[in-house]
Amino acid sequence: MALETLKAKVKKGEGLAVEAESRGFNIKMDEPKDEGGTDTGMNPMELILCGLGGCQTIVASAFAKFKGIDLKDFWIELEGDLDPDGFKGKKDVRPGYQEIRYKIHIKSDSPEDEVRDFVDFIEKTCPVGDSLGNEVKLKKSDIIIE
Amino acid sequence: MALETLKAKVKKGEGLAVEAESRGFNIKMDEPKDEGGTDTGMNPMELILCGLGGCQTIVASAFAKFKGIDLKDFWIELEGDLDPDGFKGKKDVRPGYQEIRYKIHIKSDSPEDEVRDFVDFIEKTCPVGDSLGNEVKLKKSDIIIE
Repeated sequence: MALETLKAKVKKGEGLAVEAESRGFNIKMDEPKDEGGTDTGMNPMELILCGLGGCQTIVASAFAKFKGIDLKDFWIELEGDLDPDGFKGKKDVRPGYQEIRYKIHIKSDSPEDEVRDFVDFIEKTCPVGDSLGNEVKLKKSDIIIE
Repeated sequence: MALETLKAKVKKGEGLAVEAESRGFNIKMDEPKDEGGTDTGMNPMELILCGLGGCQTIVASAFAKFKGIDLKDFWIELEGDLDPDGFKGKKDVRPGYQEIRYKIHIKSDSPEDEVRDFVDFIEKTCPVGDSLGNEVKLKKSDIIIE
């Protein structure tokens, strides 16, 4: 199938604040005051945890009927570990997440083994999960010095 | 240094809509109408493009002074390619991003070579960039069937 290209624009605000936009929707990001920010939004690493849980949830909602699963409710608790030394430039410490864990809550009257298979399907199919769990090629297409 | 653990909670809404929360900040996600959603927010794959650009921007804002770079303004255009067949379960097609490209705009009176070195530093240091560009261990800690 032809590739689909998604887009976003991100702009520096005051201090550490950031304004991001995609397809007309806007999100603010920032850092807490003790990290030098003004605490006007979640930070980008918290945002990607939300993106992972959001993607798993949308896969669940989109495929439950097709997979014959009764889906009365669905929610996820996520947490990710990082070592702040990585961000501070210490060698041999990655700046990103070392591990992300998630606890899936699913309210369903379907048989337990079918629900567990459905969760396996969600994990395998989730585009954000694949983007975090496996390498994505990141490419700087240009630097424009204004 | 001790690991830092970031957290988020994500909950299914009506249809494909999703409500996410981290540290008291809330974000809605959804899919466009032609994908079966109600178009009340960006989708999770658009969200993680915002997260990448947001993280690069915060690294720029946080380190410019320390690196001796005049940073008058900073914005990024991002785009990511995915093949919808991956989400539809076609074998050998990954569901996630195949490539993410970004164009960095930086307004600065610093010498061009220093600005380019600063952009290299941003790319190397960005926690979201590392989380997408390299594998993160994803771990289902539990399934709770309610």
